[in-house]
Amino acid sequence: MRTPKGIKRLVDILASLPGIGPRQAIRLAFHLIRQGEGFQRELEDSVRDLRSAKICSQCFYVHENKDSLCDICNDDTRDKSIIAIVEKETDLMSIENTGKFRGRYLVLGELGRGGMLEADQKLKLKSLKSWISKSLSGRAREVVVAFNPTPQSDFITNQIAKELESFVDKVTRLGIGIPSSGEIEFADDETLGGAIEGRG
Amino acid sequence: MRTPKGIKRLVDILASLPGIGPRQAIRLAFHLIRQGEGFQRELEDSVRDLRSAKICSQCFYVHENKDSLCDICNDDTRDKSIIAIVEKETDLMSIENTGKFRGRYLVLGELGRGGMLEADQKLKLKSLKSWISKSLSGRAREVVVAFNPTPQSDFITNQIAKELESFVDKVTRLGIGIPSSGEIEFADDETLGGAIEGRG
Repeated sequence: MRTPKGIKRLVDILASLPGIGPRQAIRLAFHLIRQGEGFQRELEDSVRDLRSAKICSQCFYVHENKDSLCDICNDDTRDKSIIAIVEKETDLMSIENTGKFRGRYLVLGELGRGGMLEADQKLKLKSLKSWISKSLSGRAREVVVAFNPTPQSDFITNQIAKELESFVDKVTRLGIGIPSSGEIEFADDETLGGAIEGRG
Repeated sequence: MRTPKGIKRLVDILASLPGIGPRQAIRLAFHLIRQGEGFQRELEDSVRDLRSAKICSQCFYVHENKDSLCDICNDDTRDKSIIAIVEKETDLMSIENTGKFRGRYLVLGELGRGGMLEADQKLKLKSLKSWISKSLSGRAREVVVAFNPTPQSDFITNQIAKELESFVDKVTRLGIGIPSSGEIEFADDETLGGAIEGRG
């Protein structure tokens, strides 16, 4: 399918975004044309507004504060000796919504397909280690590696555990089990096995 | 999941786009933040460039010409007495790519769930009828209703056929049949039945 010249650039940009394929990119571009100038300006302005968003220098979550730390890292009531490592900002948001976690985070970025930590992820772990050295006198109480449970993420979790070995008392993972309101009958072996091991 | 204040507006706009849900909208917004200012400016500029795109006053496809007609409607070598009615611009592009159609188009817009033509679709048909009256002395040779074959689109095709009755010699639809390289064994009854009827 040839793309009309005038929208080619936008289509290429849209198609480079995660979860948007080339066909959807073309349809989105046509949709934006039909929406007209008012809507297009709204979109431009709201993208421009992103410039006020900053990345927290400590946990790499997003914030708009004057200093370099996000609201969570700035919050003195939180127990910073417990650190949850998440892949994505949305995972952090989901965990925050439970109200069950009062530690700090590290947003590591999405795990690659290769089952290995990427260069920028290694840098983030390194910055965590130096933070633990400086702020927790070299030892955190717990690191919760909160990844989607897959064989691949297990592998990376092990790498992280090894990496942090001398900086933390224990490395834990999210509990595997039957989802609330889920049915035992439909759970796979891995899930049900996890639920039995994590019973209590 | 609460959305951080600063990206709320962009998330709302993204989530209003076709095929993008609220969760993907949040993930896209975070992605755009991470991409940084250069990428954000690219996106803004390419959205701004859409302003030069115009909608053809005759077929409602997109163009960037000085007058009000798209390249296809401007092309004198095409047989305008045959009109293909398509839902989406991308359907037009797909048909153009086959090189098998040398008529003109009418981009009707996506069919609603209700199985009825919407107000702006009726206006487009009305403009087609007055164009036929003026440019073809009141009668087109053929209207090809090129919708995805579904029971619902059949219903709307019938409405269109009735609407255009006195303006066109015949109303046709795309042939239903086995996709090229497809297998008879896996075709549903509707498809295989269409292939038998359309044999030749």
